[in-house]
Amino acid sequence: MGKPAALGLTKENILLSAVSLFNTKGYSGTSVRDIAKKASVNAANISYHFNGKQGLLESCFTRFFESYLECLEMEADKLDFTPADECLKRAVFNVLQFQSENHLLARFVWREISIDSQVVREIISSYLMKERYLLKRFFEMGLDQNRFTSMPVSIFIIQLKSMMSMPFLNSQYLREVWHVFPQEQHFVDRYFTSLEQWIDQCLLIRSAVPRVSTL
Amino acid sequence: MGKPAALGLTKENILLSAVSLFNTKGYSGTSVRDIAKKASVNAANISYHFNGKQGLLESCFTRFFESYLECLEMEADKLDFTPADECLKRAVFNVLQFQSENHLLARFVWREISIDSQVVREIISSYLMKERYLLKRFFEMGLDQNRFTSMPVSIFIIQLKSMMSMPFLNSQYLREVWHVFPQEQHFVDRYFTSLEQWIDQCLLIRSAVPRVSTL
Repeated sequence: MGKPAALGLTKENILLSAVSLFNTKGYSGTSVRDIAKKASVNAANISYHFNGKQGLLESCFTRFFESYLECLEMEADKLDFTPADECLKRAVFNVLQFQSENHLLARFVWREISIDSQVVREIISSYLMKERYLLKRFFEMGLDQNRFTSMPVSIFIIQLKSMMSMPFLNSQYLREVWHVFPQEQHFVDRYFTSLEQWIDQCLLIRSAVPRVSTL
Repeated sequence: MGKPAALGLTKENILLSAVSLFNTKGYSGTSVRDIAKKASVNAANISYHFNGKQGLLESCFTRFFESYLECLEMEADKLDFTPADECLKRAVFNVLQFQSENHLLARFVWREISIDSQVVREIISSYLMKERYLLKRFFEMGLDQNRFTSMPVSIFIIQLKSMMSMPFLNSQYLREVWHVFPQEQHFVDRYFTSLEQWIDQCLLIRSAVPRVSTL
């Protein structure tokens, strides 16, 4: 194995070890020494790759939000020639799938984002403002296309975001109380169906889709 | 003012100061000294009232979940002689109102509950198992009363819980990105309307309510 690949592996290993510790001991409760021990590397490696614990935190945010926004963006790009509900559903699926595959990182990021700190304020003003722009596009296009019913967009986006992120933030609760496992494909598929239903029943105007009534 | 009242005030003051610090510096990032300074008390007072930082954490959980479960319980008690959707709506309103009035505590508790620690495991096996029991009763009674459509109960409870808690966990995000303030009555009323709509459109069978169609 070449040197760059090995370096990449070390970096990945440090990041995953850190996230795992952050989820059990909290960010502040985890020291660089703990991370070095868990990753079986020298603490100097953490300085080299991440410039310390704060750098690791920023890497977690960057890695998560870059991919997360891509999940939304690739579907938002199709809004000009595809029904908004179709695009929104695919975006929701992408987001669930991405979080399921990176469930430890998702859990940490959604928790840490609720801390009122300088780094979080920066994340909000960059990534989450972009997320707002993208999510609003789905809803506004749905209204323009006469597919979505009139609604308070901000409140509906807050609801959707809640439903998309909470199972991953509270994976331990889901596991222990409901025996449901957000990291499994089965959960993604099942949960997606219920979010699809939310879009059909709370967003779509009745005449917009051929619906099969079960009543 | 009598001594017990003054003591009660000191205790309250310590708890509120602690919660405020936990929300900016995290639980692990806050020391007993920080709390004593913020509350303008001697650190010995914290030992006396809470038996240290761990005791403070447990008091936060206990205070939050006792009242939270009461919000659900007082409506669950009416299920035998009231339509389940009515009871569920009132329970949802109680929960939103309680969290809005205790928004800093709610924010801290919902964040901390996602940490994989011993104390959280105990909270899950006591309070959150009771919450599961109560929430399931609303849904099961709705099915028994032929008011709710057949659905995967666990998934729907996870959705409802997500929507009820997330705005309070992410109050900073709501404030900065959406200019929406979960501690205000206006938010509670507006957000409640959208959860009512979710219950009507995703849970209720069509024939269960006289609905005014806007189409």
